[in-house]
Amino acid sequence: MYSDDVDVTAESLLEIERNVSERQELLRKPMRVIVIGGDGFCGWPTALHLANSGHKVLILDNLSRRKIDDELETRSLTQITSFTERVELANTYVEGRMDGAVLDVSQEKDRFREVVNSFWPDAIIHFGQQRSAPYSMLSENHRCNTVNQNVSSTSNILSVIATVNPEIHLIHLGTMGVYGYSKAFGKIPEGYLDITVNETCEQQEILYPANPGSIYHMTKCLDQLLFQFYYKNWGIPITDLHQGIVWGISTKETLFDMKLVNRFDYDGIYGTVLNRFLVQAVHGYPLTVYGTGGQRRAFIHISDTVKCVRMALENPPEENRVRIFNQVAETQTVLDLAMLVSDKYGVPVQQVPNPRKEAESNDLEVSNEGLKSLGFDPVLIKDKLMKEVLDLAKAGEDFFRKDRVLNSPKW
Amino acid sequence: MYSDDVDVTAESLLEIERNVSERQELLRKPMRVIVIGGDGFCGWPTALHLANSGHKVLILDNLSRRKIDDELETRSLTQITSFTERVELANTYVEGRMDGAVLDVSQEKDRFREVVNSFWPDAIIHFGQQRSAPYSMLSENHRCNTVNQNVSSTSNILSVIATVNPEIHLIHLGTMGVYGYSKAFGKIPEGYLDITVNETCEQQEILYPANPGSIYHMTKCLDQLLFQFYYKNWGIPITDLHQGIVWGISTKETLFDMKLVNRFDYDGIYGTVLNRFLVQAVHGYPLTVYGTGGQRRAFIHISDTVKCVRMALENPPEENRVRIFNQVAETQTVLDLAMLVSDKYGVPVQQVPNPRKEAESNDLEVSNEGLKSLGFDPVLIKDKLMKEVLDLAKAGEDFFRKDRVLNSPKW
Repeated sequence: MYSDDVDVTAESLLEIERNVSERQELLRKPMRVIVIGGDGFCGWPTALHLANSGHKVLILDNLSRRKIDDELETRSLTQITSFTERVELANTYVEGRMDGAVLDVSQEKDRFREVVNSFWPDAIIHFGQQRSAPYSMLSENHRCNTVNQNVSSTSNILSVIATVNPEIHLIHLGTMGVYGYSKAFGKIPEGYLDITVNETCEQQEILYPANPGSIYHMTKCLDQLLFQFYYKNWGIPITDLHQGIVWGISTKETLFDMKLVNRFDYDGIYGTVLNRFLVQAVHGYPLTVYGTGGQRRAFIHISDTVKCVRMALENPPEENRVRIFNQVAETQTVLDLAMLVSDKYGVPVQQVPNPRKEAESNDLEVSNEGLKSLGFDPVLIKDKLMKEVLDLAKAGEDFFRKDRVLNSPKW
Repeated sequence: MYSDDVDVTAESLLEIERNVSERQELLRKPMRVIVIGGDGFCGWPTALHLANSGHKVLILDNLSRRKIDDELETRSLTQITSFTERVELANTYVEGRMDGAVLDVSQEKDRFREVVNSFWPDAIIHFGQQRSAPYSMLSENHRCNTVNQNVSSTSNILSVIATVNPEIHLIHLGTMGVYGYSKAFGKIPEGYLDITVNETCEQQEILYPANPGSIYHMTKCLDQLLFQFYYKNWGIPITDLHQGIVWGISTKETLFDMKLVNRFDYDGIYGTVLNRFLVQAVHGYPLTVYGTGGQRRAFIHISDTVKCVRMALENPPEENRVRIFNQVAETQTVLDLAMLVSDKYGVPVQQVPNPRKEAESNDLEVSNEGLKSLGFDPVLIKDKLMKEVLDLAKAGEDFFRKDRVLNSPKW
């Protein structure tokens, strides 16, 4: 339903027709959406996709991801343009439906409230958090700054929604990492766990017990409690998308123009594992696997990320609780991914000591029925490996720094 | 064991002897303790008690409670002296074992680290949080400021402990309010709940599912996740004391000198319910019960608070998890408390609309075996009602403001 990559068959033409009629219906009721953190790796293509789908989008971003590039002395392999330039350029492709402002919701709550009051959004999409687990573990300052930034942003957004208009739908990018990576409670459900209390023998549904692996993941667990509370007290409609590890770079809309390109991180701090492997492959650098590589993780392609967020937006929650979806296409072990890339591009796999305190290997099974019920038809790694990533990695050759590949802190 | 109120019988003399020999043993190994928030209602008498018990105490406080008095245009009915004056005076009673500094751990992490490095404590006791549920619900700013203050203080303290010395025992004042006030899961255990996962039929122990009733209570739920994470990653020994509602004002040590008196709040924002009733009784003001008064809550006398903290300090955790104690003497319904005061002092009970979103009435049963196993012998309301509170309430007559009694926000 939401796939852009269809072969031309009778069936797929029908599908396209359905898509078109859906789009037309949608264009009759476009939504007003604030995308916080819309200059980042997931936020930017999401903002583009929503604007291109007919919604009116306002990006708010504190540019922290660009500042962290300076701090870490690294940069995107792709040449991303300035925030203002990319927003202005995007506007020419989406008929004026995109706007942007530099604003830090974690620090400027009063200005944020004014913006919400004047823009009067139907929904707010919240990517406005420090998103790297290794970064959050670099030092005492990084631990505390990640907590302050991430908690304050969520708390301020919720509190302003409660003040201005509790009917605003909040969509938050969570992480599969809130569950921990184990089958301690069986297949991972979507946010809630059915239990029996031993003392009373009564059945209950509880929020899945948090088991975060880093300070970053922990802040997303704190978010969950904030969501539960604000839902209970103000009835704010909330969707929390527990996302897997994102791979890929481009979406249909970032390919509209070279200058709309998404950022591409390959370093040990911000580069996600599969993207890192592909850059290493391009540069003939061995694929560095932490420990045994037996860690099984959940993955999703960036083009699915933006579609899933749109599905959540266009289908607000109807249940009497915070809605939680696992935004996940598939699970893979890190070693399997490395072997896949290794087989295809002829670079060796190299095992290095795992900097993280985690199980050497784990099993993982994840429910993703919620988004599937809204039409999510996931792109799988084996079907779409990954020419565009390789092209972009090659294009960025001049900026590749070998010493950034293994710069993760230990914890 | 830790009781100061013993009748002189053969048995009690034996008991006293045991106490003395314990004290003597203790005096051979005094501990170095930082008390954060040691200028507040629970912090001040705790700091005094620990110093008087032979420990070396350093109070750090940002004086926020005094500033909030100015903001709310209310004040303690007792005439508390300035922070510097009370610390200096206390010192003359505790042989120089008390020191104090104005420092905000939520804002001044670097200075805090320096203090921890130079003082080199065995334990840090953390009262450094905004502690009023109604205050946390006053407005958008109060919601966000309570979250920022409370989360940053805990996060900074933990992160500094991890940096400087992960063997420092952190003792935190939590709240019974993290559990919610229901028997949804049976008798409330001490922090952890035994469950069976329905899908796998496996038995598990999980952190008790959070169900906070206010932003304030919610911050204490966030604290719990921070504790779990820092324990898992750095092995920091942590005791979280889930305290009931405190009543009473004085402890043995605050009675050493008029100028060591504890603060006494009677307003709808900071006054705890039983203390409020007593002040209302003194002024012939009807005892205002929210709703039916069927809300059952857990209570503890302030002199027990300070003893329990000392027990936790002198008996560091030995288990392989965050240690959680319910710091609770008994449970009572609000209406029963009002009737008790009404019967004794002849003032009527008046039911007013409940400003809080909560059940009209609830049952509540609480385990407090942990502290009991360390010798906690609770003072009960019916046995110790409450002459000292009345005396202090009368003494503060000049400062009583009727319009402050019902100033709680609605939520």
